[in-house]
Amino acid sequence: MSKPTATIPDLTKLAIAFRDERDWKQFHNPKDMALSLMLEAAEVIELMQWKSGQELQAHLLARREALADELSDVLYWVLTIAHDFQIDMARAFVEKLKKSAKKYPVEKSRGRSSKYTEL
Amino acid sequence: MSKPTATIPDLTKLAIAFRDERDWKQFHNPKDMALSLMLEAAEVIELMQWKSGQELQAHLLARREALADELSDVLYWVLTIAHDFQIDMARAFVEKLKKSAKKYPVEKSRGRSSKYTEL
Amino acid sequence: MSKPTATIPDLTKLAIAFRDERDWKQFHNPKDMALSLMLEAAEVIELMQWKSGQELQAHLLARREALADELSDVLYWVLTIAHDFQIDMARAFVEKLKKSAKKYPVEKSRGRSSKYTEL
Amino acid sequence: MSKPTATIPDLTKLAIAFRDERDWKQFHNPKDMALSLMLEAAEVIELMQWKSGQELQAHLLARREALADELSDVLYWVLTIAHDFQIDMARAFVEKLKKSAKKYPVEKSRGRSSKYTEL
Repeated sequence: MSKPTATIPDLTKLAIAFRDERDWKQFHNPKDMALSLMLEAAEVIELMQWKSGQELQAHLLARREALADELSDVLYWVLTIAHDFQIDMARAFVEKLKKSAKKYPVEKSRGRSSKYTEL
Repeated sequence: MSKPTATIPDLTKLAIAFRDERDWKQFHNPKDMALSLMLEAAEVIELMQWKSGQELQAHLLARREALADELSDVLYWVLTIAHDFQIDMARAFVEKLKKSAKKYPVEKSRGRSSKYTEL
Repeated sequence: MSKPTATIPDLTKLAIAFRDERDWKQFHNPKDMALSLMLEAAEVIELMQWKSGQELQAHLLARREALADELSDVLYWVLTIAHDFQIDMARAFVEKLKKSAKKYPVEKSRGRSSKYTEL
Repeated sequence: MSKPTATIPDLTKLAIAFRDERDWKQFHNPKDMALSLMLEAAEVIELMQWKSGQELQAHLLARREALADELSDVLYWVLTIAHDFQIDMARAFVEKLKKSAKKYPVEKSRGRSSKYTEL
């Protein structure tokens, strides 16, 4: 199950098994889960504080494992929140990309960083 | 590719294709990507502000699509950051779960919400 | 200057003196300062993770000094960012309260937690 | 009370009066207040997304009022949280600066952005 072709449901099963073995479901109310998601996202960006450009790039390449770990922690909460609300995360992701494609039509948004409200 | 068995590499390909069609790679420096990850995580929890318990649960069930959209936005940044740093996200996730399993051994952490530093 | 009647300019002077003694202005670009503000805000809420109601209240009362420290760190960044952009923070605060008072008129918002867009 | 020499207790009184007029104390549990603090900090940095260097500086100078408003929103939550936990915010700020001065002695930290754990 650890091969690189693991699906979203595969990874979700691993995340939920990890939680169930520790009997942690009882603590997982939606707000604290979302808070954990946010705090893990904060740890991703904390890796990048006070650095920019080439220095940042080199810093992150030297800490690629730490970056991978922090991104994994974010993913853990995405998958467990989705699981608890019966959200099919792979399908949701594809659907959301379609909505974003409508909000940001290629011809209007190509090469522009503006928000869709400013296009 | 939109079926629920989509793999992490499948979803990553969709995310990168979305970006490339809009020529947005040029804006995607690590810090602004991580910032976007964090701002999307903030939007997940914003859905839950000022509500708790049963009221929050009902509120979220009524907004399951919004929740799915916001989680998808978080996932988008996880996948694109991982892509840009050549991180095999599925493998990284499994590896991180193994590390977490060591930090939180089942016998010590079962039914406890304490941080590993306090176990 | 440490008496409880210290003004916003008093506290700002202390913050800037702390920075200048360490020659840290050179690192204080707006984005990393705002990032620091956000990471300190994250530390405030991290004190509250996995706890609610009476348990949270007791937990925070027992950690009032930690809470005070984290709020101080947030305030440090508010004051230094305001300083660097020549914002008169005390005046800005009063002005913003006036704007909020217009967005949330007493008669419409009394006892309601809704966002002004939903009033 | 809106003159630039307003003290922290002055501004706190304004913030609490604003809340009391709207009978909003009932919604202000610690976690949602800290969450609001964090979401307002996110709005500060959202002003800076996808911009750096000179472009960011110009962008912010042109939006100084928006920046002042967002910083005011952060300050509102610092002051109301401190108020609800009977924290003397001005004194706490001065005390925290003293602690930071010990963690970051001038001779060791001068001109260095490293965390105190790495000094």
